[in-house]
Amino acid sequence: MDILHYQKDFITYLESKKWVREPRNLYEPIDYIIKLGGKRMRPILTLMAADIFSNEYQKAMPAALAIEVFHNFTLIHDDIMDAAPLRRGQETVHEKWDTNTGILSGDAMLILAYQYFENYEPVVFQKLAQLFSKTALEVCDGQQLDVDFETRNDVTIDEYINMIRLKTSVLVAAALKMGAIVAETTEENAHLIYDFGLNLGLAFQLQDDYLDTFGDPETFGKQIGGDIIENKKTFLYLKALEISNASDTQKLQALYNQKLKENTSKITEVTRIFEVNQIPALIKEQIQMYTEKAFETLSEMNISKENKQGLKNFGLWLMNRSV
Amino acid sequence: MDILHYQKDFITYLESKKWVREPRNLYEPIDYIIKLGGKRMRPILTLMAADIFSNEYQKAMPAALAIEVFHNFTLIHDDIMDAAPLRRGQETVHEKWDTNTGILSGDAMLILAYQYFENYEPVVFQKLAQLFSKTALEVCDGQQLDVDFETRNDVTIDEYINMIRLKTSVLVAAALKMGAIVAETTEENAHLIYDFGLNLGLAFQLQDDYLDTFGDPETFGKQIGGDIIENKKTFLYLKALEISNASDTQKLQALYNQKLKENTSKITEVTRIFEVNQIPALIKEQIQMYTEKAFETLSEMNISKENKQGLKNFGLWLMNRSV
Repeated sequence: MDILHYQKDFITYLESKKWVREPRNLYEPIDYIIKLGGKRMRPILTLMAADIFSNEYQKAMPAALAIEVFHNFTLIHDDIMDAAPLRRGQETVHEKWDTNTGILSGDAMLILAYQYFENYEPVVFQKLAQLFSKTALEVCDGQQLDVDFETRNDVTIDEYINMIRLKTSVLVAAALKMGAIVAETTEENAHLIYDFGLNLGLAFQLQDDYLDTFGDPETFGKQIGGDIIENKKTFLYLKALEISNASDTQKLQALYNQKLKENTSKITEVTRIFEVNQIPALIKEQIQMYTEKAFETLSEMNISKENKQGLKNFGLWLMNRSV
Repeated sequence: MDILHYQKDFITYLESKKWVREPRNLYEPIDYIIKLGGKRMRPILTLMAADIFSNEYQKAMPAALAIEVFHNFTLIHDDIMDAAPLRRGQETVHEKWDTNTGILSGDAMLILAYQYFENYEPVVFQKLAQLFSKTALEVCDGQQLDVDFETRNDVTIDEYINMIRLKTSVLVAAALKMGAIVAETTEENAHLIYDFGLNLGLAFQLQDDYLDTFGDPETFGKQIGGDIIENKKTFLYLKALEISNASDTQKLQALYNQKLKENTSKITEVTRIFEVNQIPALIKEQIQMYTEKAFETLSEMNISKENKQGLKNFGLWLMNRSV
């Protein structure tokens, strides 16, 4: 149960694959995005779950790869929709090539993801593909809600939590459950590890919201205040609107109606409003709550103490990330 | 074995489904494109094959729907890539909504297609999903080749045939084979009906090339000369380049380097070059050749005479279409 060991093994597996084939213009962008890096958090989760429930995590490599390829497919299509120029500090696929290439290479990746499940026998294959389809569709739903929220002024915190559950958490949960499916553990365990992932995923995304404004610029990787610049209605913003006085509410709404070239003073002002309204403490409470919920599911799980501690350590590693 | 009967049953099945759910902005475009119409040729093929090999074509409805939903997914994404304003005489999805909606609703349809296979037990499910993934990836390959050809001046006829095989024929072939899989017939029969579809698909696409220039404007549905306006390197163009004299070759290449607002004289001139070089006769020969190849596979198939005749009738119905 060593996270870095799974990570290393997964990267070796991923790099052993020949990504580029004919027609090259379709597969070179796939090779590019797949090798752009990242923490490989989702495939690590699949391997970890398989290891916990069967001690044979190598068997879960194709499922782990499916999750990672799917995740990268969503990055390509999301980057087109967001007109994002950069991804992990490098040009996005639609920038380096063009939008049409991004669309088609993304489509091919979604199909490739399904193909990795062909490494498993029919019953396991069907369980994996079924969970995968359900999850992938939920991710689309989440992305659509995220888009819808941009033009809505009445988004509630509950709606926001539901959106990030669909857009982010279900994939974390499914990554873990796929490991459980490959390991052929009990339905009960598979269900519990899914719940663990769902709550950890929510904690993770809320922490991402927090770090986007309050993270250490040295270690966060992305630009601090990116969500504020983009007028993203994150937990911070929605909570501030909910509890701030009329004056702050008005200021915040006015600031979120602007798209500026120079954002320093906007970021400073929004951050100040968040701080005087105790939003950092409130979001930390939520993060804590979802993390604890995740850890509670562990107690119900029929696995060894060491494995429970391992999953907890992963949660702590993930949540104490400064990036 | 009545084509119109399959068609009617399929449309009833398709319309019995509730396509719109939350988030509506994701599913309304799906409902829209699915109900835009079309001949429903591919799902009819699935039903027909299932009927031939098992007499239980109702069982093949979900597989037929998967094929139709996939086909419509490719239409949405292709229309974005081609910047096409119209589809079946109506606004395309990215025109009626926007490009981002087209991308995301398309993605969701690709996933929905896989979900319909969940109606089958694991072994059949895996066979269907495996054939589907292989086919879907080939369609992406074909689409990429089609895009690549736009900027290449050395496309051979063989390369063109390979491109239309991937972009069009494999889906026709897979539609038939899926019916065979659902019917749980022999591998041999499944293989033969796939080959039948592959050759019929090639004949069908070549006929589409022919009709695009030489069809009856009253019945063809699309604008006559559309491929010429778009400088599409179809069989007609590639064959003409191959066999015409230096003067015609030069003229043709010059005409295909232009994008015009008024295309009447361009269409007239290109059509004339095709005609003096006997291209209509040559393409008809090819269509005939692939149709006969398709019919030859029938003789090897272990099915009743009536069913062979039924498949032949379908081929004839398809090839004698004036649209």
